[in-house]
Amino acid sequence: MTIEQKLAGMGLALEEAAAPLANYVPAVVRPPFLFTSGASCFVSGKPRYLGKIGRDLSLDQGIDAARLTVLSLLAKIRDALGGLERMERIIRLTGYLNCLPDFTEHSKVMDGASDLLVELMGESGRHARTVLGLASLPLDLPLEIDMVVSIRD
Amino acid sequence: MTIEQKLAGMGLALEEAAAPLANYVPAVVRPPFLFTSGASCFVSGKPRYLGKIGRDLSLDQGIDAARLTVLSLLAKIRDALGGLERMERIIRLTGYLNCLPDFTEHSKVMDGASDLLVELMGESGRHARTVLGLASLPLDLPLEIDMVVSIRD
Amino acid sequence: MTIEQKLAGMGLALEEAAAPLANYVPAVVRPPFLFTSGASCFVSGKPRYLGKIGRDLSLDQGIDAARLTVLSLLAKIRDALGGLERMERIIRLTGYLNCLPDFTEHSKVMDGASDLLVELMGESGRHARTVLGLASLPLDLPLEIDMVVSIRD
Repeated sequence: MTIEQKLAGMGLALEEAAAPLANYVPAVVRPPFLFTSGASCFVSGKPRYLGKIGRDLSLDQGIDAARLTVLSLLAKIRDALGGLERMERIIRLTGYLNCLPDFTEHSKVMDGASDLLVELMGESGRHARTVLGLASLPLDLPLEIDMVVSIRD
Repeated sequence: MTIEQKLAGMGLALEEAAAPLANYVPAVVRPPFLFTSGASCFVSGKPRYLGKIGRDLSLDQGIDAARLTVLSLLAKIRDALGGLERMERIIRLTGYLNCLPDFTEHSKVMDGASDLLVELMGESGRHARTVLGLASLPLDLPLEIDMVVSIRD
Repeated sequence: MTIEQKLAGMGLALEEAAAPLANYVPAVVRPPFLFTSGASCFVSGKPRYLGKIGRDLSLDQGIDAARLTVLSLLAKIRDALGGLERMERIIRLTGYLNCLPDFTEHSKVMDGASDLLVELMGESGRHARTVLGLASLPLDLPLEIDMVVSIRD
């Protein structure tokens, strides 16, 4: 089963990739790697959530935002590669959470992203990861995630 | 026109690269990539601005700091490669802004960096990008930017 | 002398690598690079320190935490590569410090990591580096560090 078939079985689908907010591109390919820009929980061109996780968003909403961000990243990768089957492996995820100084549950939020990738891709979806609590993010987005992916020739 | 000729046409020039603040190097080359250290808005060895963007610096000063940081990065890259013409493409920029928890205009600040790179390099200056709001930065610098660049053999 | 012999001469040793906190892996190898997950100052499976550097930890404790984090990273790299001698060079370190908005001594803390790497590896331990002040980190860890390393074939 392809990733898009698995997504369909979960009731999910990839949208068209959202345009960047400014003068940069969603992903750059330089074999053997693809590097993405920071993405967030955009659905139909608008952020599904805004604000700080743990204050304006519940933990469950943060986890949902992380899952939605993976869908956004996969859409950008599909567009950059011409198809998701050119992905070899997810190498690294960095998760940037918009939260208060006393927040400590970063790992649970980011599991929303990591678990979905492993569910979709199995072993090739298992990645290195860093998760951080930021003071603020563009537009007051609740989180951003960027990725390094290795690609097939 | 070379990048340095374009800079001259804009009334700008690259300085000698500033020495690192500690036991590390400004850039490491491992083909096909060059990775820079985090750089900031140093001019003649001193930071042009200090403090938090949106409180101590205006938005326009933040944008100027981002432009100055690109000049600092290009100087480091020129020194590491022996010349800017060995750059193939700007792969990724990560921008770290020193700002308050309610700041939201990160993208406008970072456009100071992205726009200058595209002005100087055209399509090969278009990059993936992540912009973040940090709680604090070394020396109270207003921003740091690091880069991944691909290089010609 | 190998890195592990040098560590022994300093009274230090690498532990077994700690298991990740969630659904990800400590390091991913994709030649010519190895990318680590964010690591921290874990000793015998528990964080040696918790809290914010400059408030809950002194500067010296922050430096010690950075040194311990390098040991943790080297243990993960050894496990991923089957031995530290496969490391070619430390390419890049990113240091994420859990601290207050007025903290400015990030470089001194991070020197704990950089100095140890250069002490152990000489020129091949010299790296590009970015150091940042985060609003919060997972579990209230005092810092995280992640690395990019180049490897021999």
